[in-house]
Amino acid sequence: MSRGAGLIVLLSDFGTRDWYVPVLKGVILSRAPAVRLVDLTHEIPPQDILAGAFTLAATAPWFPKGAVFLCVVDPSVGSRRVLLAARADGQFFVGPDNGLLGLTLERATQATIVQLTQRRFWLTPISRTFHGRDILAPVAAHLATGGRLAALGRSVRQTAPLLLPRVQQRDRTVTGEIVHIDAFGNLITNLDAARWLSRRGSLRFHRRHVPWVSSYSEGEPEQLIALVNALGLVELAIREGSAAWSVNAKRGDKVELLL
Amino acid sequence: MSRGAGLIVLLSDFGTRDWYVPVLKGVILSRAPAVRLVDLTHEIPPQDILAGAFTLAATAPWFPKGAVFLCVVDPSVGSRRVLLAARADGQFFVGPDNGLLGLTLERATQATIVQLTQRRFWLTPISRTFHGRDILAPVAAHLATGGRLAALGRSVRQTAPLLLPRVQQRDRTVTGEIVHIDAFGNLITNLDAARWLSRRGSLRFHRRHVPWVSSYSEGEPEQLIALVNALGLVELAIREGSAAWSVNAKRGDKVELLL
Amino acid sequence: MSRGAGLIVLLSDFGTRDWYVPVLKGVILSRAPAVRLVDLTHEIPPQDILAGAFTLAATAPWFPKGAVFLCVVDPSVGSRRVLLAARADGQFFVGPDNGLLGLTLERATQATIVQLTQRRFWLTPISRTFHGRDILAPVAAHLATGGRLAALGRSVRQTAPLLLPRVQQRDRTVTGEIVHIDAFGNLITNLDAARWLSRRGSLRFHRRHVPWVSSYSEGEPEQLIALVNALGLVELAIREGSAAWSVNAKRGDKVELLL
Repeated sequence: MSRGAGLIVLLSDFGTRDWYVPVLKGVILSRAPAVRLVDLTHEIPPQDILAGAFTLAATAPWFPKGAVFLCVVDPSVGSRRVLLAARADGQFFVGPDNGLLGLTLERATQATIVQLTQRRFWLTPISRTFHGRDILAPVAAHLATGGRLAALGRSVRQTAPLLLPRVQQRDRTVTGEIVHIDAFGNLITNLDAARWLSRRGSLRFHRRHVPWVSSYSEGEPEQLIALVNALGLVELAIREGSAAWSVNAKRGDKVELLL
Repeated sequence: MSRGAGLIVLLSDFGTRDWYVPVLKGVILSRAPAVRLVDLTHEIPPQDILAGAFTLAATAPWFPKGAVFLCVVDPSVGSRRVLLAARADGQFFVGPDNGLLGLTLERATQATIVQLTQRRFWLTPISRTFHGRDILAPVAAHLATGGRLAALGRSVRQTAPLLLPRVQQRDRTVTGEIVHIDAFGNLITNLDAARWLSRRGSLRFHRRHVPWVSSYSEGEPEQLIALVNALGLVELAIREGSAAWSVNAKRGDKVELLL
Repeated sequence: MSRGAGLIVLLSDFGTRDWYVPVLKGVILSRAPAVRLVDLTHEIPPQDILAGAFTLAATAPWFPKGAVFLCVVDPSVGSRRVLLAARADGQFFVGPDNGLLGLTLERATQATIVQLTQRRFWLTPISRTFHGRDILAPVAAHLATGGRLAALGRSVRQTAPLLLPRVQQRDRTVTGEIVHIDAFGNLITNLDAARWLSRRGSLRFHRRHVPWVSSYSEGEPEQLIALVNALGLVELAIREGSAAWSVNAKRGDKVELLL
């Protein structure tokens, strides 16, 4: 896609009843009238950074290069938290430095990240309650119309990771939990394969043994299986079915790995 | 409308919380960056083919020629059900062959229908759970950018009809039912006028006699009336009012025709 | 923005389940295929003109000049109420003359308003139940493609004001009420500053004295404050917080001004 055409994809926890989302769009279209707007979703549960991060990471790869993702799940607006813009594998991401972009940036082959400091791209004055409108929307418009990333602020290497609940280890038992349930009912855990699966232990969930497979298609129909997903996390799934429904799982349910 | 401009109208039962709908849009925009996207609705009740079919049939005539309708209400995804693309009266329709497109294609003056078989237009690999993304979205992008219908697969004459609940006949009493309530509160029945109204019988609903009219405007204010609608089905209505509210009707309520 | 590009922003109480909103869009795109469409919201509570008027007034200033706002909250459709189109401070507004556009037009520095009478711009035939589709949508398409406002009907000076609940005065006590709670939880009253604040009285709400400030930033954290907002109305707020949540306020709660 030519970046001149310009595509901005919006993700937020604003809902669609109020004027938050249309105001973001109004600011963008005031600065970049030809930019195309697509809603990812505005129904992230309020302030649920984890749900926002997983939803973004699952969706972004299906969009073309050059797409700009404007992401606003920002419980700390008004505090001194940092705002970021990044280019990762040819797409752009704008949002607070609170982990929301974490999964997406960590997974990228190549990422350049800047801290938003150059006020000349922002609205004037800046409110303390709606940085999505005042800072992130004009910055997204800048990027979607071919503006340079480097102009927006100074480059940073470290960003806030997505804070997953802590994994507990006691002797040879590692206890993780379900941190996200995706649209297919797959159960994503906080067990990072790189850290915990050097030796594949035996996995237990809801008092059942769960066999390891290397891809969904290896599962038997209606069989709960475990695999390492595209984010490098252990995931429980049922081939062509919803694991969440079948085993009545919910966020926070424990997963045990016996090493 | 020039088909070069390209317009895709999306109908589904996916809701707007999850990444289903934006992923469809991402796939389309990856292949056809200039295509315009309009949501018909994504709030069709889950797997409710009937509601999807009536909503599509009521909406499509208001869109311009050349519009491509991408329709995903697909309870049988993963089974061997067929996927279709069609040109009907100058518009295009893409969806599963389960009746969802039935009312629209039956009503068309002219329709050409193909079964989707040409895999070179699809994503690779094809999942078993999300054919909307893997097959229907790229096919819609093909049609919206001026691609040929005939290239997508072989022509078919027969498609699955929309399965309405069966009408019962016993002696001279024909019993149908309300199969859809539209946005105005009009009550659409499964009584096909061509089959059942060769002789106009007396109509009863909720123990009341309902008079026949030939158009809405013939009704008295607040009077429940019966007419044959644009789809050829018997419909109960109140002029400038909601029949559903006035008589507290719901889907499944019986309608009796005394021949 | 070039008016040739054309942007229509849609506000309604139609919800997004039914075919109302896509039919509006279909009519617009049939007449103006290149126009861009943005949803303000379709979740105004049914027939709630007050909520529609405040939401529109809060959002419109963030959109570019040339934008056309198509506004349909129309409890009196089918009666003899008038439909309007207006140009106000470089933007366009189309909707029923029932107060929905009131706050926006009153606030404008410059406004030209016409009553829609020229049927050649409308669909044929006109229904009695869906003037949004039959009249307002084609008129919005006309304006968004650079059509003249004056061609649509005769100029009018008086339009229906937004009917706020009446303010009561008894001796030196003026009693108003909360008429709208905005997305930030700010409490907007029906107390018009121009009329009631020639002398700043003492303000009481929920049995508490509320101090006057001239801008949000003058408030202490968590302190309920009163100010005159951009619409010229008295508003209660908490700096960087939600007044509605903090004091458990709802629409209709009384505000007393002791002169």
